[in-house]
Amino acid sequence: MKSFVEVSPDSHFPIQNLPYGVFSTTDNETRRLGVAIGDLILDLSVIAHLFTGPLLKNQQQVFKEPTLNSFMALSPAVWNEARTTIQTLLAHDQSTLRDDCQLRAKALVPQAGAVMHLPAHIGDYTDFYSSLDHATNVGTMFRGKENALMPNWKYLPVGYHGRASSVVVSGTPIHRPNGQTRPKDDEPPVFGPCRLMDFELEMAFFIGGGNTLGTPINVKDAHNHIFGMVVMNDWSARDIQKWEYVPLGPFLAKNLGTTISPWVVTMDALKPFLVDNYPQDPKPFPYLVHDEKYNFNINLEVGIKSAGSKQAGTVCRSNFRYMYWTMKQQLAHHTVTGCNMRPGDLLASGTISGPTEDSFGSMLELSWRGSKTVDIGNGETRKFLQDGDEVVMTGYCQGEGYRVGFGPCTGKVLPANPVN
Amino acid sequence: MKSFVEVSPDSHFPIQNLPYGVFSTTDNETRRLGVAIGDLILDLSVIAHLFTGPLLKNQQQVFKEPTLNSFMALSPAVWNEARTTIQTLLAHDQSTLRDDCQLRAKALVPQAGAVMHLPAHIGDYTDFYSSLDHATNVGTMFRGKENALMPNWKYLPVGYHGRASSVVVSGTPIHRPNGQTRPKDDEPPVFGPCRLMDFELEMAFFIGGGNTLGTPINVKDAHNHIFGMVVMNDWSARDIQKWEYVPLGPFLAKNLGTTISPWVVTMDALKPFLVDNYPQDPKPFPYLVHDEKYNFNINLEVGIKSAGSKQAGTVCRSNFRYMYWTMKQQLAHHTVTGCNMRPGDLLASGTISGPTEDSFGSMLELSWRGSKTVDIGNGETRKFLQDGDEVVMTGYCQGEGYRVGFGPCTGKVLPANPVN
Repeated sequence: MKSFVEVSPDSHFPIQNLPYGVFSTTDNETRRLGVAIGDLILDLSVIAHLFTGPLLKNQQQVFKEPTLNSFMALSPAVWNEARTTIQTLLAHDQSTLRDDCQLRAKALVPQAGAVMHLPAHIGDYTDFYSSLDHATNVGTMFRGKENALMPNWKYLPVGYHGRASSVVVSGTPIHRPNGQTRPKDDEPPVFGPCRLMDFELEMAFFIGGGNTLGTPINVKDAHNHIFGMVVMNDWSARDIQKWEYVPLGPFLAKNLGTTISPWVVTMDALKPFLVDNYPQDPKPFPYLVHDEKYNFNINLEVGIKSAGSKQAGTVCRSNFRYMYWTMKQQLAHHTVTGCNMRPGDLLASGTISGPTEDSFGSMLELSWRGSKTVDIGNGETRKFLQDGDEVVMTGYCQGEGYRVGFGPCTGKVLPANPVN
Repeated sequence: MKSFVEVSPDSHFPIQNLPYGVFSTTDNETRRLGVAIGDLILDLSVIAHLFTGPLLKNQQQVFKEPTLNSFMALSPAVWNEARTTIQTLLAHDQSTLRDDCQLRAKALVPQAGAVMHLPAHIGDYTDFYSSLDHATNVGTMFRGKENALMPNWKYLPVGYHGRASSVVVSGTPIHRPNGQTRPKDDEPPVFGPCRLMDFELEMAFFIGGGNTLGTPINVKDAHNHIFGMVVMNDWSARDIQKWEYVPLGPFLAKNLGTTISPWVVTMDALKPFLVDNYPQDPKPFPYLVHDEKYNFNINLEVGIKSAGSKQAGTVCRSNFRYMYWTMKQQLAHHTVTGCNMRPGDLLASGTISGPTEDSFGSMLELSWRGSKTVDIGNGETRKFLQDGDEVVMTGYCQGEGYRVGFGPCTGKVLPANPVN
């Protein structure tokens, strides 16, 4: 499979990928849907009339909207037809778009000149806690090795509701938050800028379709409600979290901002990278059991670029395959009470750490609670993030001669606002 | 102040109230904005052209939308102008509406024939935990009297992010959820219908205006972002919660449904019922300090009507004034990290319990963790909710010869879905 658009082998966006996003340009500030191909964006609002398959010919309006929600509201069969249509239009041996200079000039936009926006209106955002190594690391630090995992952890995918309004697209700077912390356990709390600012390397999936309140999504049907995935940085204020989180969980430590990569990679594009599920013992309850593979080999990397540095220094290399619970299990669990999902809802993995020290997905783990420094290149080290640091997350699957990637998920830490 | 519409003294909706809601009728299924007056609804979409004040004359379109969000996005000065206009139109001595039979026939709709809907699109929903008696009761049950309150409780309004999609309007039935519980601490968990289904008596406020990510709302400006209030039933699955909630807080125990009363009572209508704030010791950090009163005398009541009964038996009489933290403090705290609020976001109080046993706002407290029965009239008792039980919450402020009320907040418990 080859596109007439030139795509370098290390590009994240070959014709095998075709992720969806929302973009605008200086000369046209209307937000519109696009598909990344090489260094370009295929503007779907311009080619909406070319979706002439049986399922989409009467639904072309979904490609003229400012978010992906209406497209996400459709079904896997429709998403697949759209993918086939786009793949055909971009193929090196198909003339419809390739040879229509006027259409190409309008429909293909350089990514370099585009501004990316959130791909969907996110109705609700949920964060899970599904990496065994991460949960074990954090539990070991705070409760010791013997009590690292809570008793519920291997029975259900632990998760919590997050803040949807503060999910932002890659590139949005994040202010260091002010808040209450209690640096010394035997003294009263203090108020001021967070001192233990951290990233969390995560991935997240967007809901397609949905369910009505009171009607769970069966684990066997869960795949039909998973539209696609993004890379996520779940910024965390560790010291604020430690003081506030009992007994109702993280709150302000998490709502200062959550960054996602702008391109939503579809499950069709990720299918070639399926790998064995993580072995689960004890065997989960039947409502969480599925036999087929639903784990993915996605390479993940985190770099930190300090204010004075020209390049991000890699601090973590992890992989989505380290997830203990699958996305199907997360979705079945989330809705087993009857909780309703809407197209565009976002469900995140939780920090994805691997078994080795260089694969830990947060500074909390990499610096082992600040007990050691982490090299970020350029002769600099960190325990937690400093003002001016830019965190750069990337994720990609390696195919034979091509990569299916997510584009960068970046954000720079700005100083805390003055307290008034 | 008197309306030409007849209003009985115990009606929740005299001309002093004028709460906003969204309704439709059998003959016109379009969702539209209305104001409750006596047993009628004033259809704002019909009288939008009568908002001719300086602030609203060019904003009349906000009254033609299917939710209150655009109106909520405006400012207190505009809300106040709208209130004055509506109060004038409904006054007994004003002829514009009173004497225009044709307009009256179109603009005044019986509540009995209307279907109420959610008043706003709720972007995000947050639940606080701000009643001292409730937190003390729950803490005493689970950790003993000496450790009832967590160390952070009197320093900050503890809260957590909730699920927005499952917030429903009064009258929506709620399925008893299935889920994992662990009835015996030394045995593995089990899966099945929740056995400890509960209500939580709460109130909640809708955000007006909003703030951009990174810019907190100052406690001194918080009032300008509080549009109005509703009564809320935060349905809770106690046994699911107990097993799942460590370490990240309540999740599935809460997302099975959250019911709100359909009428949003504005802060202007509640102003006459301001009472002293709850004494706070220690003195909060400056970012949480405001001097003026922002506590309200709102009578709250919970009744349970069993499937075989004709009338709800009262199980709880509480009052909003028992809140330790004010809504201004909750909002200032929520945004101090820079978290952004959007018009229509919903922030709830947490269970509102008073100091006496008959004022506890949940079955968990009323039955003291199931250790005693609660009389629900008709010769029946409960420890927790049974299938077929309808929970009826009401709230009102008592003025001289009139009531400013919220209308009912009701919901019936349906049996759990069969597990597939």
